[in-house]
Amino acid sequence: MSWLDQVNFDADGLIPVVTQEHGTGKVLMVAWMNREALRLTNESNQAVYWSRSRNKLWRKGEESGHTQIVHEIRLDCDEDVILLNVKQVGGIACHTGRHNCFFKKLENEQWRTDQPVIKNPEDIYKPLA
Amino acid sequence: MSWLDQVNFDADGLIPVVTQEHGTGKVLMVAWMNREALRLTNESNQAVYWSRSRNKLWRKGEESGHTQIVHEIRLDCDEDVILLNVKQVGGIACHTGRHNCFFKKLENEQWRTDQPVIKNPEDIYKPLA
Repeated sequence: MSWLDQVNFDADGLIPVVTQEHGTGKVLMVAWMNREALRLTNESNQAVYWSRSRNKLWRKGEESGHTQIVHEIRLDCDEDVILLNVKQVGGIACHTGRHNCFFKKLENEQWRTDQPVIKNPEDIYKPLA
Repeated sequence: MSWLDQVNFDADGLIPVVTQEHGTGKVLMVAWMNREALRLTNESNQAVYWSRSRNKLWRKGEESGHTQIVHEIRLDCDEDVILLNVKQVGGIACHTGRHNCFFKKLENEQWRTDQPVIKNPEDIYKPLA
């Protein structure tokens, strides 16, 4: 049996993926993979997700250059969540230009942003000439 | 507007939650919350999830004693994933009796378990006398 057959994809053929930064242990983002994305992630050693909004494979960094080099792939007890340990190229995982996506912290029943924008998204996602 | 109104629950009224251990940065588990679970988690300072299998609120540790003391609650850029930073009471988050749920590591296209069982699940989940 293939390692991919042991993974429990949901009714839509997807599995949630927690991506954690190697070394710092920071949780960078949560995204989704289908079987093909997971296969390609392991094969290419770079994170490939499934974009639910665009409904297609999403090679992380394909536009921004902020690719993720895979250090480790883990599966949970129920075999329905993937934990990816990566090196984040450029030090920016979030499309807002921040290090990671979890920059809103609950304080006194308010969500407060406590991470700086490292690079302006307009400078990250330049339209092709 | 309440902080709860800013959270994007999915069509089923749920949001995925990544639970990370304070101090070690280890990802302990991924579970789900509904609005009530999130409200109670903040109010009680202990993780309360929504059990999709039992279809009810799940006060983590209610049977095992392995509660999670909330250190921090974060929300991601799309406001559709929660990151919980917790102190794991008993040092066991997984129902298999392991420290965390991500004990299967992909090695040469095989999932290999690399974490010990700290306590036998039969000794954790004792039927009420």
